[in-house]
Amino acid sequence: MSRYIGNGTVLLESTPSVVSYGSAAGKMEGEGPLGSCFDYVSEDSAFGENTWEKAESRLQQHAFEQALIRGNIAESSISFVFAGDLLNQCTGSAYSMRNNGARFIGLYGACSTMAESLALASVFADSGIGSLNAALTSSHFCSAERQFRFPETYGGQRTPTAQWTATASGCAIVGAHSGPPYVKAVTIGTVKDMGIKDANNMGAAMAPAAYDSIKTHLDTAGKAPEDFDLILTGDLGFVGSDLLNDLFLQDGVKLGNRHNDCGMMIFDREKQDVHAGGSGCGCSASVLCGHILPMIRSGELKNVLFTATGALMSTTLVQQGESIPGIAHCVHLSFDDSL
Amino acid sequence: MSRYIGNGTVLLESTPSVVSYGSAAGKMEGEGPLGSCFDYVSEDSAFGENTWEKAESRLQQHAFEQALIRGNIAESSISFVFAGDLLNQCTGSAYSMRNNGARFIGLYGACSTMAESLALASVFADSGIGSLNAALTSSHFCSAERQFRFPETYGGQRTPTAQWTATASGCAIVGAHSGPPYVKAVTIGTVKDMGIKDANNMGAAMAPAAYDSIKTHLDTAGKAPEDFDLILTGDLGFVGSDLLNDLFLQDGVKLGNRHNDCGMMIFDREKQDVHAGGSGCGCSASVLCGHILPMIRSGELKNVLFTATGALMSTTLVQQGESIPGIAHCVHLSFDDSL
Repeated sequence: MSRYIGNGTVLLESTPSVVSYGSAAGKMEGEGPLGSCFDYVSEDSAFGENTWEKAESRLQQHAFEQALIRGNIAESSISFVFAGDLLNQCTGSAYSMRNNGARFIGLYGACSTMAESLALASVFADSGIGSLNAALTSSHFCSAERQFRFPETYGGQRTPTAQWTATASGCAIVGAHSGPPYVKAVTIGTVKDMGIKDANNMGAAMAPAAYDSIKTHLDTAGKAPEDFDLILTGDLGFVGSDLLNDLFLQDGVKLGNRHNDCGMMIFDREKQDVHAGGSGCGCSASVLCGHILPMIRSGELKNVLFTATGALMSTTLVQQGESIPGIAHCVHLSFDDSL
Repeated sequence: MSRYIGNGTVLLESTPSVVSYGSAAGKMEGEGPLGSCFDYVSEDSAFGENTWEKAESRLQQHAFEQALIRGNIAESSISFVFAGDLLNQCTGSAYSMRNNGARFIGLYGACSTMAESLALASVFADSGIGSLNAALTSSHFCSAERQFRFPETYGGQRTPTAQWTATASGCAIVGAHSGPPYVKAVTIGTVKDMGIKDANNMGAAMAPAAYDSIKTHLDTAGKAPEDFDLILTGDLGFVGSDLLNDLFLQDGVKLGNRHNDCGMMIFDREKQDVHAGGSGCGCSASVLCGHILPMIRSGELKNVLFTATGALMSTTLVQQGESIPGIAHCVHLSFDDSL
């Protein structure tokens, strides 16, 4: 039974379980530091399709299928699918779920979507609404690059603050309390805009939202950073993560090694030319579902505050000179079920 | 306490109330048959802004504010805002909620978004998660036309099956059981694609989804069409509504005058040159919040099955030759609170 304690924070008193998870990624992500964690890695960026957009839907289907396989779950046993992606009109998700009978709740939270979908799937499970609810997101470098920046063939220079959209997807399936990882609490964020206008510096646009949601979660749920092994943002990258640490330092709070960021983890900064790190809602989804959830299941990590961050602009609004709003949502994942 | 009874259908056993609602519309909608119902009608399509996208955010803010005013509700009393729109990356909603402190859950369901947002806001309220939750959507003719079809100045011919995106917004605020309208049940739909490829005939693309969700809701909740004064789709328009009626006739079910469609109601087909009717997630939102909810509050309508329908394509996918998936979600609104 979910209990609302204010400031967007909901305690999940039944501590529902992430009963299964799956991940899928592209070739470059497969060659990164977490490559061996992903359930499915494609050698082919097109995932056997003839457009990047269809490739993204296929990628997302792989993550969904891997989660079903790991949990030995029939597709028809899934009650609700909460899904989203970065494409215009969220077609990555709509086309991946087309005609498969899934009860579909389409979301848009930019790169925060994995936390948004996991929060909603968990609240539904905690309230007994649906036996198994899936949270699912994806991103694809090529579909994102074409849509948000330049065509692949343009050969434009990338700035040092630019992040690299990961070709990746993750799916977490939440059900009744049965074993770790448990979902203990979630915090839904607010739309924060501190006036950043550089679409090649989304880490800076999102850092204030991450700070606000993490601080709100800690204060409202009565937690301290020390209560977590890992405060995992995604995807601030290197620039945004520095800013997040600075914002907490102003409060006298040192996050230090307790903080990491999915955008800093998915690629090797030295060997892979990704500038400020990875991004895209598939980045945090695949790092969470491929790397973090298994570590919580095994007890290697006890408490993780997963905080996916999104930049809520469009190219149209940026071209109109508007600044970039950010948002972040928090999900407390834990090895133990004490509230 | 929400009870899941399968097939995407949730019974809201506390029967939460739509405690307030607000609507806003453009000049042409204000001159239509429902013009006098809307709380705010602008003489200026730009709503005082210098771009169509910013105009849409301002329009959405008007609907939100009108709902707060009608309910004598402080903005800070709203727990969660479930919002979405048609713009790329759903910027209409993100920018309208920027820096106002609202706990923001971004949705994308195309023109089904008002039912999606109202369903989620109601499930949250029924589960005691948040005291007051807002459901909010918008659409704007000019921002949609520029994004999905041609620039306004192009002067292209519109086909007879084309619908006219309404410049309109609606907001419903759901709270604990207190008085009519009550939300009794919701059904979340699936992504249906019957192979329609004509982006100028979205009514046909969405009609199968509307049929599927309405039939699922009736069968699962144990209801018949006769249990409703009004089965209100939005926005199939004239073409899609005919198809919906035909689909039910194949089952031997005559919807007849029991069915109406927000896209057929918002404009005067004879006097306003809208071809197959209105569309846009603001169309069903404004008709619901401006016209229908007051009639349920007064008892003039006893039971309404609000079924907003969305076409989940993007211009990119249509240009790639893909067909158009549709989705529909149902919300049972009632004057009485017996389940």
